[in-house]
Amino acid sequence: MRFDIITVLPSLLDSPFAHSILQRAQKKGLSEIHVHNLRDYTSNKQRSVDDYPYGGGSGMVMQIEPFATCIEKLQSERTYDEIIYMTPDGETLNQSIANDLSTRGNMIILCGHYKGIDQRIRDIFVTREISIGDYVLSGGELPAAILVDAIIRLIPGVLSDETSALSDSFQDGLLDAPIYTRPAEWRGHKVPDILLSGNEAKINAWRDDQQLQRTQERRPDLLGDNEQ
Amino acid sequence: MRFDIITVLPSLLDSPFAHSILQRAQKKGLSEIHVHNLRDYTSNKQRSVDDYPYGGGSGMVMQIEPFATCIEKLQSERTYDEIIYMTPDGETLNQSIANDLSTRGNMIILCGHYKGIDQRIRDIFVTREISIGDYVLSGGELPAAILVDAIIRLIPGVLSDETSALSDSFQDGLLDAPIYTRPAEWRGHKVPDILLSGNEAKINAWRDDQQLQRTQERRPDLLGDNEQ
Repeated sequence: MRFDIITVLPSLLDSPFAHSILQRAQKKGLSEIHVHNLRDYTSNKQRSVDDYPYGGGSGMVMQIEPFATCIEKLQSERTYDEIIYMTPDGETLNQSIANDLSTRGNMIILCGHYKGIDQRIRDIFVTREISIGDYVLSGGELPAAILVDAIIRLIPGVLSDETSALSDSFQDGLLDAPIYTRPAEWRGHKVPDILLSGNEAKINAWRDDQQLQRTQERRPDLLGDNEQ
Repeated sequence: MRFDIITVLPSLLDSPFAHSILQRAQKKGLSEIHVHNLRDYTSNKQRSVDDYPYGGGSGMVMQIEPFATCIEKLQSERTYDEIIYMTPDGETLNQSIANDLSTRGNMIILCGHYKGIDQRIRDIFVTREISIGDYVLSGGELPAAILVDAIIRLIPGVLSDETSALSDSFQDGLLDAPIYTRPAEWRGHKVPDILLSGNEAKINAWRDDQQLQRTQERRPDLLGDNEQ
């Protein structure tokens, strides 16, 4: 699986991709992440990538040409399954979208900045628009890192413990049960007795019950709609 | 506004906080971001921060003591308005939560890793649990960066153009209208005539209409429920 991320702030992504499972997946050859500086694809001396919005209004708009040049160069080198634009008005990322994308091959991810990108880039090139949530950020770089992280950890062989991803929140439509580790008592706060009982069946039943209870309390919407 | 972020991967956050508006906000003295290495607050030689879960199961659980030590040291130095834990089973971040948090003072953010943190840290210390969306990531570091980004850009004086944040998607409960910049025609793809008309009233009416239309098409849930 290969990700090509196009951004005006490539160095913003230096440290997120150099750590943890993203680094491990690259070292193991399970994933490649390439970050492209959009300014390398400009044809003007100032290497500017944005201009004022037609019709007036605040904020700058990213122009078509640099994105088009970079995308078409990448497409001349290999085939891409998706060209994704990170945008707050895209479809909201959830675990099933992440699961789905983890089975794909090559993807290009466009990071917007300023007020956003010229609508024509979206109309002509973009195959999928994804939002990581209903809030506005200063750019698409962190959302791109979030998307890549959510996908890459699902590739078989990336997580050291294969069963770990499957027991995550959302994979079975429920939130996780509370978890505890040593010490069994800390300043009078104790671990629930059941977890120390050694009775696997009872522990599993307790966890199932806690998952359901927590989901009912915190996210009843997840129970009402299995499509979520 | 001051953020203290507690993590086992402090350097993962180096580049996101060194760029763009997060850097500008810190340089202008509008915000301080301090990242703390959880391992500096361990009392064992191996500087380990996690242990096996009580009751069995996959994944490791982060222990109470290092978080408690770090939180209590910070609390001895100043008062905190919130101690936030980034977790997929927290309340889902949205623009109104970001708006609300942008009016606060000091905040501690805890980043989980591995399978999560001992439930007692949540019970004893955490005042607010926030999820950035319904998907699982390899750690709480990128979500912490997302939260800080969403909040900091709302602090007056951080964005260069004050009106820009107010016209963002979600601030009025609607998605943004399409935006365009030069050239007016690119490979036959034209900017809508109305935006070139110079008629401000008509342009505003068109944008309002486009916002409503795009929201109806993509996110009808935002129209049905103004609490979102």
